[in-house]
Amino acid sequence: MPLVPEAIERLVTEFGRLPGIGPKTAQRLAFHCLRTPAEMTERLGAALQQLHQQVQPCARCFFIADGDLCAICSDPRRDPALLCVVEEALDVVAVERSGEFRGLYHVLGGALSPMDGIGPDELRIAELERRAATDEVREVVIATDPDVEGEATAYYLGERLAAAGVTVTRLAHGLPAGADLEYADELTVARAFAGRRAL
Amino acid sequence: MPLVPEAIERLVTEFGRLPGIGPKTAQRLAFHCLRTPAEMTERLGAALQQLHQQVQPCARCFFIADGDLCAICSDPRRDPALLCVVEEALDVVAVERSGEFRGLYHVLGGALSPMDGIGPDELRIAELERRAATDEVREVVIATDPDVEGEATAYYLGERLAAAGVTVTRLAHGLPAGADLEYADELTVARAFAGRRAL
Repeated sequence: MPLVPEAIERLVTEFGRLPGIGPKTAQRLAFHCLRTPAEMTERLGAALQQLHQQVQPCARCFFIADGDLCAICSDPRRDPALLCVVEEALDVVAVERSGEFRGLYHVLGGALSPMDGIGPDELRIAELERRAATDEVREVVIATDPDVEGEATAYYLGERLAAAGVTVTRLAHGLPAGADLEYADELTVARAFAGRRAL
Repeated sequence: MPLVPEAIERLVTEFGRLPGIGPKTAQRLAFHCLRTPAEMTERLGAALQQLHQQVQPCARCFFIADGDLCAICSDPRRDPALLCVVEEALDVVAVERSGEFRGLYHVLGGALSPMDGIGPDELRIAELERRAATDEVREVVIATDPDVEGEATAYYLGERLAAAGVTVTRLAHGLPAGADLEYADELTVARAFAGRRAL
């Protein structure tokens, strides 16, 4: 007979599949759920079980939606001439938080990474090219992450979209707001110099 | 119309109720669940929903059980003359991992903490006194945490159980195995000196 009932072992295993949650944390979370009232644990369980039934990718931009189109694509005040290309749905949330962008989005679903077997066909690049080729779109802002994969993806998209006759731009690199120059890494400082502007 | 569908907001809220999971991590986990296949999210959901139906506290020691008694209480090879008192179910797992203890347990459900409104009546102390008063029990080993609340609880239990005519002992304090003396805190070193033994 195992020390801990199988229902708990199963919960520990499933918690441990989440990113950033190791075996120790998974065990701590499972035992925490045991101590909390059943309603709370069941509410989290229900939210997880309903997630994929109630939510799907937006048919146009692949952000998340509870209908056919997401909140942004179905907002008539957004400017359809501007497309912002991001890797993940969470990046849309980050850009929206800035309040700086009033166009539409395109969620690629990741970045090019040949080492992980992610080529152009694994991302929603064909869909992006189709959208960029319409007369409506004037500028595509590439907002992939400022890391190796994100830069490679940005470069690749720049090449591909040049043919579509749209302006392709990339988010600026430089010092993050509120940061300390003293603690910035060399590449960030080098890019901040390269991108310096007249005051 | 909110940016993110309500099903996701709900999941973020519920993840955020777990200990050690802040709003940012909760959001990251929820968006991760969106990207994984529906089966995985549903498996975690089902494990959470079934938890409280399939598992309850052991009727004797309050460790976790899927029947009336836990795996330890229903093992005839365990010595019923020895009781180890711990704060939480997870502490039983830690003591079992050491392989050092062959008796039975008693899970208090916390430690005395007047500041948080946890007095003797909020813990399973009356149940412990009843168990300790039986002829069968010879020694009660108090294994509450070596922090302020755990020490206060150990002291309180020592006083209460003296009346029951059993030997009451406390786990040794000292240097943790594999640690560096150089990095040990003053209290740990002081206790290691106080508890030194002949070689």
